[in-house]
Amino acid sequence: MFNTVALVGATGAVGRIMRQLLEERPLPAKTFRFLASKRSAGGTITFRGQDHQVEELTKDCFAGTDLVIATTPDEIARDYLPSAVEAGATVIDESGYWRMKEGVALVIPEVNPQDAINAKGIIASPNCSTTQMVVALKPLHDAAKVKRVVVSTYQAVSGIGLSGTKELEEGTHMHLHGQPYNYTAFKHPIAFNCIPQIGGEKEAGYTSEEMKMVYETRKILGDESILVCPTCVRIPVANCHSETIAVETERPISPEEARGLFESFPGIKVVDDIGSSMYPMPLNSTGSDLVYVGRIRKDLSHPNGLSFWCVSDNLRKGAATNAIQIAELLAKHRFGK
Amino acid sequence: MFNTVALVGATGAVGRIMRQLLEERPLPAKTFRFLASKRSAGGTITFRGQDHQVEELTKDCFAGTDLVIATTPDEIARDYLPSAVEAGATVIDESGYWRMKEGVALVIPEVNPQDAINAKGIIASPNCSTTQMVVALKPLHDAAKVKRVVVSTYQAVSGIGLSGTKELEEGTHMHLHGQPYNYTAFKHPIAFNCIPQIGGEKEAGYTSEEMKMVYETRKILGDESILVCPTCVRIPVANCHSETIAVETERPISPEEARGLFESFPGIKVVDDIGSSMYPMPLNSTGSDLVYVGRIRKDLSHPNGLSFWCVSDNLRKGAATNAIQIAELLAKHRFGK
Repeated sequence: MFNTVALVGATGAVGRIMRQLLEERPLPAKTFRFLASKRSAGGTITFRGQDHQVEELTKDCFAGTDLVIATTPDEIARDYLPSAVEAGATVIDESGYWRMKEGVALVIPEVNPQDAINAKGIIASPNCSTTQMVVALKPLHDAAKVKRVVVSTYQAVSGIGLSGTKELEEGTHMHLHGQPYNYTAFKHPIAFNCIPQIGGEKEAGYTSEEMKMVYETRKILGDESILVCPTCVRIPVANCHSETIAVETERPISPEEARGLFESFPGIKVVDDIGSSMYPMPLNSTGSDLVYVGRIRKDLSHPNGLSFWCVSDNLRKGAATNAIQIAELLAKHRFGK
Repeated sequence: MFNTVALVGATGAVGRIMRQLLEERPLPAKTFRFLASKRSAGGTITFRGQDHQVEELTKDCFAGTDLVIATTPDEIARDYLPSAVEAGATVIDESGYWRMKEGVALVIPEVNPQDAINAKGIIASPNCSTTQMVVALKPLHDAAKVKRVVVSTYQAVSGIGLSGTKELEEGTHMHLHGQPYNYTAFKHPIAFNCIPQIGGEKEAGYTSEEMKMVYETRKILGDESILVCPTCVRIPVANCHSETIAVETERPISPEEARGLFESFPGIKVVDDIGSSMYPMPLNSTGSDLVYVGRIRKDLSHPNGLSFWCVSDNLRKGAATNAIQIAELLAKHRFGK
């Protein structure tokens, strides 16, 4: 088993869910440590029946730690995680900073587990909107090679963190009462609105969130020829991202074949009966670790096209769950359990 | 000028806006009549400074009326509008019933005005999600021929009518207070959720709303070769539909050329500066008669592809405004004003 597992960013929105997952799921480890910024250090976290003091994250705090699971802003990941690697730890990073770096593994356990097993140094967990899409694309790619993807996202405010959830609730309340509300986590009011920008401008008029979907998809699937056209949109939903995905494959995949491929892939659940108004939705996907797929149908505009709808809990499979699953994968490989 | 103009469905969500538009804009007519179902008949409407009694819609109520502008459910349009044509009236219909019928004109005044001028009998106004997309596609189609469109919609609850708006407000209020709410206008809770179904199942797993976008687009643009892959999604926004549109044209159109084409087309306003977080959004498009376009960029997944974002007030340009503009077009053609 692991000797010491450190959870970095233990007090944030994703860190909370990671702790919850580590309570529920038996990652084998002797000791757990909880690290956070100076602001949150000193507090107490109760975990597996014991109180733990939250330690301050520093560059020399990693001695004796063999696994680090980190969920922090990009700059913190950039500044602190190399010290963890130097101290000999395996590092699983949820931030965006390391994902596309040469030599860093970018892993979804259902999709490319071997990349985690072969990794030296940091193993990155992908962006939330990418993860659920790539889980859904993988069985199609294996069966018929994905050539092109047009994806539009319907993203929840929890992706911003606790402030996003708080401001959606407060802003909506004030809107219903005809009162103004001063948003700081969003560039525009989010209550009863949608904002077609997530992240800053990156290149060619695309945002950073959109370009993550382009580049991370190729790296995880190990295929630089895959073309992706994304539009990322924030909508007034508390939790769970939804996506419309139109995919072109080298040979046509019928909706029936696609349904079978999705159903036999680990981590995917098909909910698909439009006649009975059954399909995945944010409200009924929250709290689950699965990627839900529905509205599976032939793309009417392309002979090799398939169109579907995909929903997943962005804080869980899109972040915390995927990182913990990577840790579990490593434990199984190293310790056989 | 018109002798008598009758507004059918005068008391509904779209009917209210039609009256408002007819107050603001000088459609030349001697007399206006307001018709509604038996339930709403007998009430009083104040219009252009005069009180009018709401008359009951019957099959023999159209004698002496030369223009009918109707916004009713499909079955009412089916049952009553032929009587208006027989009585000699020109009929502009906002419902879905007549749009795809042989011999019925389907018109957006900026796009295919001649079809209204040549029409005998009913002139239909398109579905809201189709109208804003086709206005945006038309200048691209004229310049470089549209071959394929992948569209995902983010549709407001006002598309359902007054009950949609009421249930979004009430359901959101109850959700914020942790209370259940019994929705009747929606198949699932809409507060803080999105529902990937608008209309019933139509064909091949697509909904009626989606198939409207396929067929109406071809009819309005007069090009049966245009391929459309739509996904229509209801989101918790009060008013204005948004759409992501990925379009392939016969020759490539650069974002710069597209911007110029959009800007010189009547009825379109470009709001497009991602660096300054400027783009169209539902909250700042409501109450306008324009189609707003932003996020104009090259489709990274196709050499002849262009991707953009489009927002419009579904009750106005998507419904009331388009019908009134058809009436104005006819007035100008017949009476020169």
